[in-house]
Amino acid sequence: MFSKGSNINLDKANVLIQALPYIQKFNGKTIVVKYGGNAMINEDIKNAVIRDIVLLNCVGIKIVMVHGGGPEINGFLNKIGKESKFVNGLRVTDEETMDVVQMVLSGKVNKDLVALIGRNGGQAIGLCGVDAGLFNVKKHVSNDGVDLGYVGDITNVNESVVRNCLDGGYIPIISTIALGQEDGKVYNINADTAAAELSVKLNAEKLILLTDVPGLLRDRNDENSLISEVKYKDIPKLIDEKIISGGMIPKIECCTNALKGGVKSAHIIDGRILHSILLEIFSQDGVGTMLS
Amino acid sequence: MFSKGSNINLDKANVLIQALPYIQKFNGKTIVVKYGGNAMINEDIKNAVIRDIVLLNCVGIKIVMVHGGGPEINGFLNKIGKESKFVNGLRVTDEETMDVVQMVLSGKVNKDLVALIGRNGGQAIGLCGVDAGLFNVKKHVSNDGVDLGYVGDITNVNESVVRNCLDGGYIPIISTIALGQEDGKVYNINADTAAAELSVKLNAEKLILLTDVPGLLRDRNDENSLISEVKYKDIPKLIDEKIISGGMIPKIECCTNALKGGVKSAHIIDGRILHSILLEIFSQDGVGTMLS
Amino acid sequence: MFSKGSNINLDKANVLIQALPYIQKFNGKTIVVKYGGNAMINEDIKNAVIRDIVLLNCVGIKIVMVHGGGPEINGFLNKIGKESKFVNGLRVTDEETMDVVQMVLSGKVNKDLVALIGRNGGQAIGLCGVDAGLFNVKKHVSNDGVDLGYVGDITNVNESVVRNCLDGGYIPIISTIALGQEDGKVYNINADTAAAELSVKLNAEKLILLTDVPGLLRDRNDENSLISEVKYKDIPKLIDEKIISGGMIPKIECCTNALKGGVKSAHIIDGRILHSILLEIFSQDGVGTMLS
Amino acid sequence: MFSKGSNINLDKANVLIQALPYIQKFNGKTIVVKYGGNAMINEDIKNAVIRDIVLLNCVGIKIVMVHGGGPEINGFLNKIGKESKFVNGLRVTDEETMDVVQMVLSGKVNKDLVALIGRNGGQAIGLCGVDAGLFNVKKHVSNDGVDLGYVGDITNVNESVVRNCLDGGYIPIISTIALGQEDGKVYNINADTAAAELSVKLNAEKLILLTDVPGLLRDRNDENSLISEVKYKDIPKLIDEKIISGGMIPKIECCTNALKGGVKSAHIIDGRILHSILLEIFSQDGVGTMLS
Amino acid sequence: MFSKGSNINLDKANVLIQALPYIQKFNGKTIVVKYGGNAMINEDIKNAVIRDIVLLNCVGIKIVMVHGGGPEINGFLNKIGKESKFVNGLRVTDEETMDVVQMVLSGKVNKDLVALIGRNGGQAIGLCGVDAGLFNVKKHVSNDGVDLGYVGDITNVNESVVRNCLDGGYIPIISTIALGQEDGKVYNINADTAAAELSVKLNAEKLILLTDVPGLLRDRNDENSLISEVKYKDIPKLIDEKIISGGMIPKIECCTNALKGGVKSAHIIDGRILHSILLEIFSQDGVGTMLS
Amino acid sequence: MFSKGSNINLDKANVLIQALPYIQKFNGKTIVVKYGGNAMINEDIKNAVIRDIVLLNCVGIKIVMVHGGGPEINGFLNKIGKESKFVNGLRVTDEETMDVVQMVLSGKVNKDLVALIGRNGGQAIGLCGVDAGLFNVKKHVSNDGVDLGYVGDITNVNESVVRNCLDGGYIPIISTIALGQEDGKVYNINADTAAAELSVKLNAEKLILLTDVPGLLRDRNDENSLISEVKYKDIPKLIDEKIISGGMIPKIECCTNALKGGVKSAHIIDGRILHSILLEIFSQDGVGTMLS
Repeated sequence: MFSKGSNINLDKANVLIQALPYIQKFNGKTIVVKYGGNAMINEDIKNAVIRDIVLLNCVGIKIVMVHGGGPEINGFLNKIGKESKFVNGLRVTDEETMDVVQMVLSGKVNKDLVALIGRNGGQAIGLCGVDAGLFNVKKHVSNDGVDLGYVGDITNVNESVVRNCLDGGYIPIISTIALGQEDGKVYNINADTAAAELSVKLNAEKLILLTDVPGLLRDRNDENSLISEVKYKDIPKLIDEKIISGGMIPKIECCTNALKGGVKSAHIIDGRILHSILLEIFSQDGVGTMLS
Repeated sequence: MFSKGSNINLDKANVLIQALPYIQKFNGKTIVVKYGGNAMINEDIKNAVIRDIVLLNCVGIKIVMVHGGGPEINGFLNKIGKESKFVNGLRVTDEETMDVVQMVLSGKVNKDLVALIGRNGGQAIGLCGVDAGLFNVKKHVSNDGVDLGYVGDITNVNESVVRNCLDGGYIPIISTIALGQEDGKVYNINADTAAAELSVKLNAEKLILLTDVPGLLRDRNDENSLISEVKYKDIPKLIDEKIISGGMIPKIECCTNALKGGVKSAHIIDGRILHSILLEIFSQDGVGTMLS
Repeated sequence: MFSKGSNINLDKANVLIQALPYIQKFNGKTIVVKYGGNAMINEDIKNAVIRDIVLLNCVGIKIVMVHGGGPEINGFLNKIGKESKFVNGLRVTDEETMDVVQMVLSGKVNKDLVALIGRNGGQAIGLCGVDAGLFNVKKHVSNDGVDLGYVGDITNVNESVVRNCLDGGYIPIISTIALGQEDGKVYNINADTAAAELSVKLNAEKLILLTDVPGLLRDRNDENSLISEVKYKDIPKLIDEKIISGGMIPKIECCTNALKGGVKSAHIIDGRILHSILLEIFSQDGVGTMLS
Repeated sequence: MFSKGSNINLDKANVLIQALPYIQKFNGKTIVVKYGGNAMINEDIKNAVIRDIVLLNCVGIKIVMVHGGGPEINGFLNKIGKESKFVNGLRVTDEETMDVVQMVLSGKVNKDLVALIGRNGGQAIGLCGVDAGLFNVKKHVSNDGVDLGYVGDITNVNESVVRNCLDGGYIPIISTIALGQEDGKVYNINADTAAAELSVKLNAEKLILLTDVPGLLRDRNDENSLISEVKYKDIPKLIDEKIISGGMIPKIECCTNALKGGVKSAHIIDGRILHSILLEIFSQDGVGTMLS
Repeated sequence: MFSKGSNINLDKANVLIQALPYIQKFNGKTIVVKYGGNAMINEDIKNAVIRDIVLLNCVGIKIVMVHGGGPEINGFLNKIGKESKFVNGLRVTDEETMDVVQMVLSGKVNKDLVALIGRNGGQAIGLCGVDAGLFNVKKHVSNDGVDLGYVGDITNVNESVVRNCLDGGYIPIISTIALGQEDGKVYNINADTAAAELSVKLNAEKLILLTDVPGLLRDRNDENSLISEVKYKDIPKLIDEKIISGGMIPKIECCTNALKGGVKSAHIIDGRILHSILLEIFSQDGVGTMLS
Repeated sequence: MFSKGSNINLDKANVLIQALPYIQKFNGKTIVVKYGGNAMINEDIKNAVIRDIVLLNCVGIKIVMVHGGGPEINGFLNKIGKESKFVNGLRVTDEETMDVVQMVLSGKVNKDLVALIGRNGGQAIGLCGVDAGLFNVKKHVSNDGVDLGYVGDITNVNESVVRNCLDGGYIPIISTIALGQEDGKVYNINADTAAAELSVKLNAEKLILLTDVPGLLRDRNDENSLISEVKYKDIPKLIDEKIISGGMIPKIECCTNALKGGVKSAHIIDGRILHSILLEIFSQDGVGTMLS
């Protein structure tokens, strides 16, 4: 990484040395990263995310990735001439759609991430919620009585297969499908929720949600109004003030549940920024919003 | 399993007792099962195969399943209006086809098998050759110079992820795709070959190929002409006599390679027979052809 | 175990598959079996009991056997011209008798059981309460002041030697003699009590008392009046109603103590029925009386 | 152990300190002691032997005891009115005799030794050659064609159960009966041979035969003619000179076999001397004859 | 250790046997010995102390030594022409003095002890409070406001490095310097206190302070007035009665803190007596004062 | 390490990512660093060296430091009015000098390095060659017959204490004194040699000698004539050409011995350059001379 005889080398060495206290702080700790949305589509960003993950694993941090894959699912449904339908942000999932969801998430997106980690020198294992009974679900019942089909709510997390992977030095990459505990059918589950529940079971140090917003903004239209840190007890007030609203509410709820379950901090960061995970973990202020 | 007050109970207990020497013989040993073809399509047979697998795992045998999924791939290609093309029995695999192969094998067939094992009380982990670098391949070069696209020949087997699963008590289920060592692209690989090479690396006791023929027949048209046992050294003569011919030749070659690599015995059995795996392992004569 | 080309094979395989949920249920659990009385004398039954034990060990159940040997002791006392005397069901045990008890139980009955397990492919270790201080006793004081000699009541159970055997994969077979904690002499102890106390210390799932009655009968003279299941809290009432009476009272007390100590269920079953242990463990209803 | 205010204390402390280099030398090493004959009958000597054993175990030496019990067997046979018959020093062992041998050795002598160790604060496990298949035998065929009955020659030693005991910190006490590999019957085996073969399998540092002679004497009638040390290669000459003769020949053969098998030294010492084991291990010259 | 053909051998063996119950009692237990003062200067006594330590380690006791080195420090300060100053028994420690303290304690006294253990066949590791953060301190504030310089009070004990040594079978020898938690400078700490705090963290069985007095005397001028045993609750009364006074008060406080922290007994013994450690541990009455 | 809202952040993240392949390459490998001379005196450089060491430990490299301390020894000898004498580059070491060497190396330089690592968040253990018998030596005999006193040549390396430290996650810091195997006295040993011999015993990946020259120069007076890489077989020629000469000869010999012993590469680098260790390990070309 150093060029021969150049002054820039010392600067680079200094950067490594600056990283030392952060590496020491998180050594042996577990961090769960939820990865989805646009950050998964741009190839440059995807490469940067994966390198961050491999680096963290390499310096002794136990890293777990939970991913979604909405755009890829839509693309494939389109290919077979099937329309994507959503009710209240949840995908209406009939049997044929569920088959596509399962295939695209667990067969395409998941294994492509595993392959990308492999090409960067890491060793990943691609799992889904069905593997070794990682997640169990029951059918989601929506408030307004609409039948969403194979959409499930998590009822049980059996994290031992993830621990087994981490203890072996592997990076577990987890797609969000799971078995219904009553009918044994495969269901689609929400990736934010899955990441949050898993982070609790793994006694994780951090939960990081990679999104395509800069974090929590005091003024939605002003990116400079980013709130860097939010205390757990201030959330109701922020909801009252409509600063937390819309699609941010369920994300904040996931974070809150993780914190209640013992996770030290939860982060909503902008996955579109190159190396945003490193920037968040290896700096004092971070790049998004930290809840604690 | 026993009905109250019925004479049949003692008979059932006796069956369990008869199984004892076979369980003792294979306790702690590894058996690799290649599963594919029609045995995967009929639901009753699939259920029976899976229960056999779970039972073997449960009585202390380390069981690994390697699977294909040709019919499902064809079905899905058909769905997106793409024709399946084969040259010398190998699928011509362009990039779009490879995407479908990857999704169907690793996302659909693989995770469905994992789910089925879960519903039968076992704990499986669905892997593919990409996970933790299990298989590496180079592009297959056919004798007649036809470019088959993303079809690969195995160059390296890194079985540690499979051992990690077995040591954790899990049943690894493996779909046959793998990374090209030069271009880092995903390739399709032959499931019989993958199973054979893996069985060698795992020092397996047995390699079992579940097929849709009764085994090796002396007279192809007479199912009663089954050859129960073949010695390794007699294979060239059987090829000369055309008793081994056609699609049986590569299967026999896989078996031979496994035997050369230290696997104790290789079995070609009829996956269409209910519980054929149990019948083969738990009996003196078995139901197909055993090579040793 | 399967005969070539016979229809009966599928039936046998189905029996194994039916056993699967029971094997899964008890995998890794500990079961303590008290073995004694007539079930020990008939050679066919003894063989069946031992095969049941070996099978259970082989499918991953941790099995411990505690045995008595009254008839063999009587036989040997007779041989040296010494009469067997009993007070309230307890053997009057002078020093010479104690020598015979020790020799017959720990040297003959115990090692014969170990040998029988060995001949059936299992690996047993024959222990007594003296080995590594497994049981300590004090002299039994009878209510009516009769001096029974070397009859002891258990004061301490140090189960670590049994755990050591189980962890090594061995089947511990335990004869019921133990050291007096005050005089360091060898004492005779009750096998039902020893089995019950040991089952508590081992956090056993089940305690099974193999007897020569069908279980608890509502009408002593009608074998069809078997009570399949008794709840712990109903026992006093059954004693009031004289349904539990005589020699059944101490057996029920042992079971009750085991249940109080955390053992999940206690079973009084008819050891004269072939494979009664398998029938009890591997079926919904069982063959005797289950207390829970 | 020290008396208050007495000059003798320093002397005692000095004795402990003198033992230090010997303890360091044998720490973690395995020593197999064959114990039998008159040293087993005198209670004072028996107590001294057992305390030596417990002390050695306590200072980190892995100690294994193999014992006989001829006099006790004779005593018991006499009790049931049966004569002890010997041919060429081997007991003629019919089925009834074998029963007595088994009971007395494994039930009486063995468990009494275990109890004695327990009373001295050690933890012993009483095993015989039948336990976990420790020894297998075939029927002994005598040179002159006399049928000795159940007398066996060792064909196989499976020492894993002994290692399991040693690893658990226990002292294994082993009585010399074993299963016939062909008929599954129990046989009587020679204790010197059993100790020698076991010492080889355990990679023992020393094999010690406790006898009732002072060791190897240059002149049988002069106890002062003791040969302290014999080199392996000098044995044939000593046999030629009739210095090794009679009952000493098989003992020397056992020692030779142990040495050939890798045991560092073999010792024939006088079990009638109090603490002869300590004296042999913890001193430069020892008290008997050392072969190396 | 035994001379050939001498009557004294049996006596020596008997001494070893007398040690047995004491070895059994402390096997696997941890004993922390504070070593300092005159007992460190006389070479004969030093050799005796070290042999005691090596012997205890060799018979399975986990032994930890904490040492001081006042006389050696004074000697060296003298060599560089620097006077030793004390206030209330504490060394006034300026930076140059601290350098000497560090060098003499950790470089000379400590490694000389390690070497002496090595020459006696033991394996020691020489540590100080700086190694792996074993002790942290803050600057000591004296009651009368005198600035003593680099004299520290322990604020934290991180005993994991000591456990690591003990688990590896090594004898940790610890010199009493430590890092200031605020300024990161090296401080001098009190060895009695360090030994007491460490004994608590290690759940030690015993804390032994080797001093140059016979123990606690009822009449300071009469060595025959030694109090062999003091109960914890009687200490205030003994202070009231001035039986505990002067330099004995802080020593008794260290012992009291150890006892409060769970250490079973604390001993103040006369290090000038040869083998006083053995005499204390291996006898009923001991040679000094035991607090419990 | 990242400043809020600054462009420089991405550059820093990129530096970390560039380090990834080097971290992956050396993960779990052992690197032995010899540290001495001027690089130990300048505080800024010392801090940089220590941070490099802590960083390497933190990213999963097993790092061992062997140090000298000539200038500090000279300084202290000076303080007590004793002159430093050298013959052929070796210190004439009488008993008083040896005492100072031992104290300064093991008590001052060693523990100061340990403290510095502690202040940078690492956990080090300060050892010397005496600890647990790490190095044994015999008295050095110089070619010209001059008696150098306590100067030793290594005769034995018992690296188990170092492995024990590395397995516990600690950084072993080793000062170069050792016991004479014949007289049990403490000797001074050469640090380059000690580092080289230890690197062989630890199967190290790299041996790095931190010196105060830029490496091997083709023209001693031209720092731009640095030879970046030397093949093992070319060394004799370089000696012939006088390119390797003077004090460089023993250093090259140490490197050669390490390479012969299986160490993958040996490096002579300029310790005066800030972060020279990182620059050497984390770059293609390095900053000094690599021998392989």
